[in-house]
Amino acid sequence: MLLNQLTIVGVGLIGASLGLAARRLGFARRVVGLGRNPASLEQAARIGAIDQGCLHGSEAVAGADFVVVCTPVDLIARQVLELSKDCKPGTLFTDAGSTKSLIVKAIETGSPSNAHFVGGHPLAGSEKKGPEHADATLFRNRWTVLTPTPRTNPEALAKVREFWESLGSHVRIMTPEAHDATLALTSHLPHLVASALAGLLPASAFDLAATGFRDTTRVAAGDPALWSAIFQHNREALLASLGATERRLADFRNALESSDWNRVQDLLAQGKKVRDALGS
Amino acid sequence: MLLNQLTIVGVGLIGASLGLAARRLGFARRVVGLGRNPASLEQAARIGAIDQGCLHGSEAVAGADFVVVCTPVDLIARQVLELSKDCKPGTLFTDAGSTKSLIVKAIETGSPSNAHFVGGHPLAGSEKKGPEHADATLFRNRWTVLTPTPRTNPEALAKVREFWESLGSHVRIMTPEAHDATLALTSHLPHLVASALAGLLPASAFDLAATGFRDTTRVAAGDPALWSAIFQHNREALLASLGATERRLADFRNALESSDWNRVQDLLAQGKKVRDALGS
Repeated sequence: MLLNQLTIVGVGLIGASLGLAARRLGFARRVVGLGRNPASLEQAARIGAIDQGCLHGSEAVAGADFVVVCTPVDLIARQVLELSKDCKPGTLFTDAGSTKSLIVKAIETGSPSNAHFVGGHPLAGSEKKGPEHADATLFRNRWTVLTPTPRTNPEALAKVREFWESLGSHVRIMTPEAHDATLALTSHLPHLVASALAGLLPASAFDLAATGFRDTTRVAAGDPALWSAIFQHNREALLASLGATERRLADFRNALESSDWNRVQDLLAQGKKVRDALGS
Repeated sequence: MLLNQLTIVGVGLIGASLGLAARRLGFARRVVGLGRNPASLEQAARIGAIDQGCLHGSEAVAGADFVVVCTPVDLIARQVLELSKDCKPGTLFTDAGSTKSLIVKAIETGSPSNAHFVGGHPLAGSEKKGPEHADATLFRNRWTVLTPTPRTNPEALAKVREFWESLGSHVRIMTPEAHDATLALTSHLPHLVASALAGLLPASAFDLAATGFRDTTRVAAGDPALWSAIFQHNREALLASLGATERRLADFRNALESSDWNRVQDLLAQGKKVRDALGS
């Protein structure tokens, strides 16, 4: 794969890591970063994640053949639709948003005339933010979900798949709805639960929160505004997952209240079986 | 601190790590391991965690001046009471159990005549088991809680404190009840919640469970029998913590159902504040 110009919208952890990887692997002649914050663009350029930073969308996409939008989920659809007005006909757009249904629907409804859009979500990242944590290997051996619809251009899908595979990622194709239902359970729900647990801890107990507590609540350090937007985008699937969690906690409560230790051990064994299967 | 003979009851991860550290630091002339499984004792001896393995309690404690009981919480009190019949007068006993109230009460009720017992809990360990994961630095810079009562011998407490400090641990003194209430929140509840989350994941979603899910559920790989015993020992405090969690999840549910995104963001911010304060 060789791109003439890769444009990355949003040079946070994901965007800067993409740029770093693309430049190191040499599959884009030029990497342009689009952002609102000059300091972030400068930092992304300094660490070698982009060749050039732009504050204006029209300038950033005019020469692009491939655009990846790595901004918060509530901005992505609008940005794709706006930027598509200034790009060359046939420019490929994809994104790295943690939710897919609303984004894909909004973009398909807007029918960008010049752009081919394929929804995407690399399952990589961390509770850290900003280009200073960029890592060229962030996507290697991780899954990236692509969410084409009947309206998706098959060649665009093939190119976007090739893009992520070039970064070392495994690609999984799902509908936007299946993506959101699964990620509600594997990502959005754990974030909510971790945050709930962390929020319960009084300062007097901080010293006695050891590795177990730290692991279980690690993701709660994520940005509340980002995650609130993700929850908003995936509200129904998240509520369904939350309901399943509440029922399972009630199972534990009933077993504890009735001192049914076989049942407690059985519930713990079910959790262990899954966790062991996942590996480290 | 120099001990003539340190006896470790149970040479799993905690017991073998203790032995390894004590032998490396040279503060026990001799380290004896007591266990039921000859293979574990042999492995503990092979990795240098103990000088000698014993299958019989009377043999293991006859020459001991310091005994640390590192077995599951449901065995500790009985073992201390039994072993105290065969030890020299004045032998110090402590334990590494994850709960304290029931253990301390049972031992004080049994009034071992030869032994001085001080309840203890090093906040170290992991979801791993067995001497093969022993680590001489496991306790370094970790907290160890000691739970004396009005009946505890002050010199015994001072010696047990010195023991843990010699291993690099920070010591915190609490009542058994305060220990159990705090650990319900910092350790037992996260285990229950992690297990509940893990148990919800269908096999079809395993590939899409990334770092966040893995961190949040890591402790669920712990031994169900061990943890069921811990839950049994700390049932009331755990139920209280579970209730607090259920109420907080209901707060999230209400905010999501009413699309109150300021409230969602506020709840997430409360969790982030705590998690940031804990550090990595």
